[in-house]
Amino acid sequence: MVLMNSQPPKLAILCGRGALPERLAHFCVNEGRDYLILAFEGQADKEFISKHPHAWSSVGQIQQCLEILKDHQVGELVFAGKFNRPSWAEIKPDRLGAQWMAKLVGKVFGDDSLLRGLIKLIEENSQIKVLSPESIIGHDLLAPRGVLGKVNPDESYFQDIIHGRKVAQTLGIVDVGQSVIVQQGLVIAVEAIEGTDNLIERSIPLLKKGPKGILVKMVKPQQDTRVDRPTIGLKTVEQSLKAGLGGIVMEAEGVILMQANDSIKLADREGLFLLGVTDDEEIS
Amino acid sequence: MVLMNSQPPKLAILCGRGALPERLAHFCVNEGRDYLILAFEGQADKEFISKHPHAWSSVGQIQQCLEILKDHQVGELVFAGKFNRPSWAEIKPDRLGAQWMAKLVGKVFGDDSLLRGLIKLIEENSQIKVLSPESIIGHDLLAPRGVLGKVNPDESYFQDIIHGRKVAQTLGIVDVGQSVIVQQGLVIAVEAIEGTDNLIERSIPLLKKGPKGILVKMVKPQQDTRVDRPTIGLKTVEQSLKAGLGGIVMEAEGVILMQANDSIKLADREGLFLLGVTDDEEIS
Repeated sequence: MVLMNSQPPKLAILCGRGALPERLAHFCVNEGRDYLILAFEGQADKEFISKHPHAWSSVGQIQQCLEILKDHQVGELVFAGKFNRPSWAEIKPDRLGAQWMAKLVGKVFGDDSLLRGLIKLIEENSQIKVLSPESIIGHDLLAPRGVLGKVNPDESYFQDIIHGRKVAQTLGIVDVGQSVIVQQGLVIAVEAIEGTDNLIERSIPLLKKGPKGILVKMVKPQQDTRVDRPTIGLKTVEQSLKAGLGGIVMEAEGVILMQANDSIKLADREGLFLLGVTDDEEIS
Repeated sequence: MVLMNSQPPKLAILCGRGALPERLAHFCVNEGRDYLILAFEGQADKEFISKHPHAWSSVGQIQQCLEILKDHQVGELVFAGKFNRPSWAEIKPDRLGAQWMAKLVGKVFGDDSLLRGLIKLIEENSQIKVLSPESIIGHDLLAPRGVLGKVNPDESYFQDIIHGRKVAQTLGIVDVGQSVIVQQGLVIAVEAIEGTDNLIERSIPLLKKGPKGILVKMVKPQQDTRVDRPTIGLKTVEQSLKAGLGGIVMEAEGVILMQANDSIKLADREGLFLLGVTDDEEIS
């Protein structure tokens, strides 16, 4: 009986796109932990979801979501993957959804304040605890500090690393994007809502000959890292190689590094550096 | 003789792309002012240049440029139009060009510090005065404060205007871009080096249904407005309409408004607002 009580509560995975929801689901399967995938119309990969215990809802149906979670006796909740931000017109709110939207209307906000409002609403209207993915899977989900793999950034990259970090942090203050591409001292492209893959893709014609560019991805200062951590994975490495970038810089203990082994293996093979930096350390 | 002496010195127009070099050339023709277009390989429109007194040089050939200007007895100089930033590899420097590059190597810089270094070098090595386009053509080249034309931004735009202005200013501090597109409280796209036309173009699939987005263009705080003023013109209005934007916000007395009559006429006809704001006024 003691063992039974020490079981963690049932986990709901609020499921967006990308590899993280799957990793969390497999973690639950491996640990024998009860879980439920809560998926939203137009947001999640149907094939993956069909293989796991799941329920569907719509964005804005917050009351309905909380009822589903209550019915399934969910005790903890994690946001996982990337969510498309719907327009106001696409949101079909129920009572709680309308309450959430009413608080937002007329306010200046980015993705971050939108999600913080949602968490507050969940916590005020249920007993469910909102957790970060790394508090479930473990802290090694986050990029460590220093060079990952075998490729070291040579000195010629240092100024671009420092500049990119500064620009990404400055952008973060006004709740814009998390990633920038820098080359030869110049910011080539800045992410807003297009996503990092599209950012890299569109930088290709903007990159010049000579010393290679780099991707820098930092956490926004005010970001609620429980629900909206920037993520890097194998696809980011593949895209960066395709664009001819020389390396990827990510905030250590801040950015989620998915498929770490495969990402590092590919980066090593192709000569791309992977570097975890803190938000204020000296780079040299 | 007195009248002869009161003639302004010969003006060199350092010629990039866009409508501004042509406007300056026509201004000189109309005023009977001596002028010379200094064009750079791969930077300027050959057809336009062929119709005016001109000379060619290459980026990095600063000494050669100064000699051309001296040979033509140029006394004043204006940067006009948009210049493509070449990669280090493409610059073929002469002695002064190398000196300019040597000062820049290893520095973190954007377009702005690059141009400031160039002006300093010109002023240190010649008697030529670098002027702003509006000090030649007149201050009405710049966007005025307030609503231009007949379309007023309704209240629903105010938050996006305020937010866009703040984000554009914040970006300017780290010498990134000058323009952002905002819709429904969210920054849709941020300009780095792709140019405003490309910024608008790539925002099209990112814009949502519902209240329209806006383009906001501000001057960077540290920008040397003699050589690098952000510009808006008929093409910006056309592109904005194509993207379904609701208005264009520009820094009053900061952004150059080209083809003002045609731009306002088109905006009026299609219901797009044009608004000049200062960098700190209250918007209401």
